[in-house]
This record gives sequence, structure tokens and C-alpha cells, in this order.
Amino acid sequence: MRIAILGGTGNLGRGLALRWAERHEIAIGSRFREKAEALVLQYLLVAKEDFDKDYEGKIWGAENREAAKKAEVAVLTVPGPHVLSLVSDLRGELGNKVVISPVVPLREQEGCFLWDPKVLGQNGHLSAAELVQARLRRSKVVSALQTISSGTLADLSSKPEADVLVSSDDRASAEIVSSLVEEIPNLRALYAGPLRVSRMTESVTPLLLNLSIYGGATDPSVKIAEF
Amino acid sequence: MRIAILGGTGNLGRGLALRWAERHEIAIGSRFREKAEALVLQYLLVAKEDFDKDYEGKIWGAENREAAKKAEVAVLTVPGPHVLSLVSDLRGELGNKVVISPVVPLREQEGCFLWDPKVLGQNGHLSAAELVQARLRRSKVVSALQTISSGTLADLSSKPEADVLVSSDDRASAEIVSSLVEEIPNLRALYAGPLRVSRMTESVTPLLLNLSIYGGATDPSVKIAEF
Repeated sequence: MRIAILGGTGNLGRGLALRWAERHEIAIGSRFREKAEALVLQYLLVAKEDFDKDYEGKIWGAENREAAKKAEVAVLTVPGPHVLSLVSDLRGELGNKVVISPVVPLREQEGCFLWDPKVLGQNGHLSAAELVQARLRRSKVVSALQTISSGTLADLSSKPEADVLVSSDDRASAEIVSSLVEEIPNLRALYAGPLRVSRMTESVTPLLLNLSIYGGATDPSVKIAEF
Repeated sequence: MRIAILGGTGNLGRGLALRWAERHEIAIGSRFREKAEALVLQYLLVAKEDFDKDYEGKIWGAENREAAKKAEVAVLTVPGPHVLSLVSDLRGELGNKVVISPVVPLREQEGCFLWDPKVLGQNGHLSAAELVQARLRRSKVVSALQTISSGTLADLSSKPEADVLVSSDDRASAEIVSSLVEEIPNLRALYAGPLRVSRMTESVTPLLLNLSIYGGATDPSVKIAEF
């Protein structure tokens, strides 16, 4: 599968690229092609030196638009405040495609993190994923990957046992994303409902951050237990 | 400790009463004393017959006001839409006390559950626990117990391994509540921050409900994993 990781120059992009390159073709997108290409060289080196994997030709760097155009699946790993302008700008390239939103609108208030869609420049109660879907009417937006620490994901030696909550109005696309998630060892994908439940899955991220701050948890993740 | 379970005639009240009666004196509160007293007789019978425990005199039934007045700690187990009027009405009796809010403002939309404070009769983004605190300025409100299924809690033979997220602006009260939570076998209490994080912990309940509906999970609970 051809996967574009848009704005994929941070920890989440790095983790996904290095973990998905085994079976997929990954484009790291950036506003600046040179930045993406430089990072790709670095990722290739890490893969080679630390894990003896040759991903030459399987990970490449591009400007966001070029990466989106060639992809079947795109992941939005840009910072919250830039997401809506990016997707509006790439509406043509992303039409009919699966678009993964791991976006979390986070606001800090006196050392404590809150879920707050206002940081996306919007009022109301809609989640980041719903706002993205409203701008990409022809795309199949899937909300996922909020509940796993990107630091942990970026560290290939770590195989965190964690659950990823997946929501989408298009069940088939949710299943594509669930399969991608479960290619990462020890991750389990759980379908949590239509896209409007994303406001709750996005809220888990600040919850985990606050547990680190107040409860002293290191890189906490969520597991759903059943009884 | 003297604990009032206000509106404690449902599953959550039953579970807490039967599990805390071992070490505490429990008042089941209701709008109608007779209803509370009838339920207490039933709880005493279950304790005796199924678990060979004699809680006679350790669980009693009362009208909510009487239960609140005599308690050191109160739990708000009334349905969401009645919570704010109940606490406004009992402001005098609950002053200076620890008040546990397991309240979750839940709205159903086309078979899917959402966290929505509008069901409490309020606009805005404040959580149930914050709205309760705003009405009970002298009380120490602690948000807790949203992340554990009340059906599971009510079934004394079940010892669910789950994490309870606790938040409060008063750390000492959060610790009292955490101790109460951890008296229940296999439950772990995690301090998640000041009361304003309660909007995120309250959001976990609809998330778990949706996981049951869409993901087929039976009585799901949350565990926080660390790496």
C-alpha cells in the first residue's frame, strides 16, 4: 500500500514510517521536500544500523502535495493548529482516499492538559477528525492512534502492548486502518464507532498526559479490559 | 467512615454499599425513605445468603437529606439530569464534606453514546464534577468511578482488574477516595489531576459503552499500561 505521512517529520511520523516500511511504500511529506528527504536518509540509516533493515526505495521524502497525490492512505501528523488548512489545501489530492487523523486538539492550562477543539481555530464540540471530514467530504476519514505514545512508537525496540481506538463513518476504511495498526507488534485495534465518537478517543490523550504529570506514569497507554 | 450513597438505589449504589460495608457504615439515600429501606433489606439478604456476611446495622436506608447530614463522605449516584438540583438542595448538609461524583452526562445519538454536559441542563464545556463543585463551594468534590462498569461492581463475585481515574482540586480528599476505591479487590486508583480533567475521565464512559456496542466488548473497563 502507498502511505503518505503528511507533516511526518516528528516522532509519530518516524515511528509509523519505520514500522510500516516492512510491507508498504512510505512517503514522508513536509512543507519542504529537502527537509523530508534529509529525514528519510536518517530513518534509512537507523533502520540499517539498528535493525539491519534495508528500506532504500521503500521510504522517500516529498513535499506534502506530492506525497498526498501518490498515496492510497494518508496520515495527518501535522501539529493541530495546521491540520485544517493543510487538508483544505490538499482536498483534491486526498479525495476518495483513506485519511487517518491521529490529531488531538490539546490546550495546556496551569500545567494540566485539556481536550479543546478551539486550538484548531473552531468553536463547538466537534472533534478534530469530524472537522477534517467536514473539509474532505469525498475522503474516508478514520480517527486513530491517539492513545499510543508517539515516543514509544518511534523507538523501534519498544513493543508496547496497547489498544488503539479506531472510529470512522466508513467501516471498510476503519478495517484497513485496523489492519495497518495491528501490523505493529502488540498493538490491538478496537472499532469504537462512527466518527463522532472521536471526541472521546481524542480526549484520552490529555488524560494520559495528565497521568504522567500527576500520577507519575511513564509513557502511559490504554488497554481495554473485559469481564 | 460514614458514607452516604445518595440516590443509591441502582447498580452502582448497590455495588459500593455491599463492597464498602465490610469496613464502613453505609447510608443508602433515596427521595423516599421506604424505597431505601426496602433495598437495604434486599442487600442485607444478598450479603448474608451469597457471601455469609452480616451487615445488619452497617447498611441503613434513609431519605437523601438525612443520609447526607450524617455522612462524612457522600457519593452522587443519582441520574445525570437530577444531580445539580439534588446538590443545590443539600448544600447545607454536604458543606465541608468529601463528595464523590461518578456522574457522566451521557447523550445517545443514533445508537452511539456521547459525552454531553447539556444533559445536565448546562451549556459549555464544564464537566459534571466541575458543575457540582460550582454549586458546593465548601465541599471537596472528587471525580471518580466513571471507568468501571456498575454491573460488574454490583456483582460481588466479580473482581474486575481495572483502573479508576480520580481527580480533585483537593489532593487530600482525592487520597481518601483513592483509598476507598482500592479497598475493592483488584481496583487501582490513579490520580489524574485537578477537577477540570474530569471532562476527560467522564468521556471514558461513553467510549466504553460504544466499545460494547460496536466492538462487541463485554463490560469493558480501562487499564492504564506503562512502558
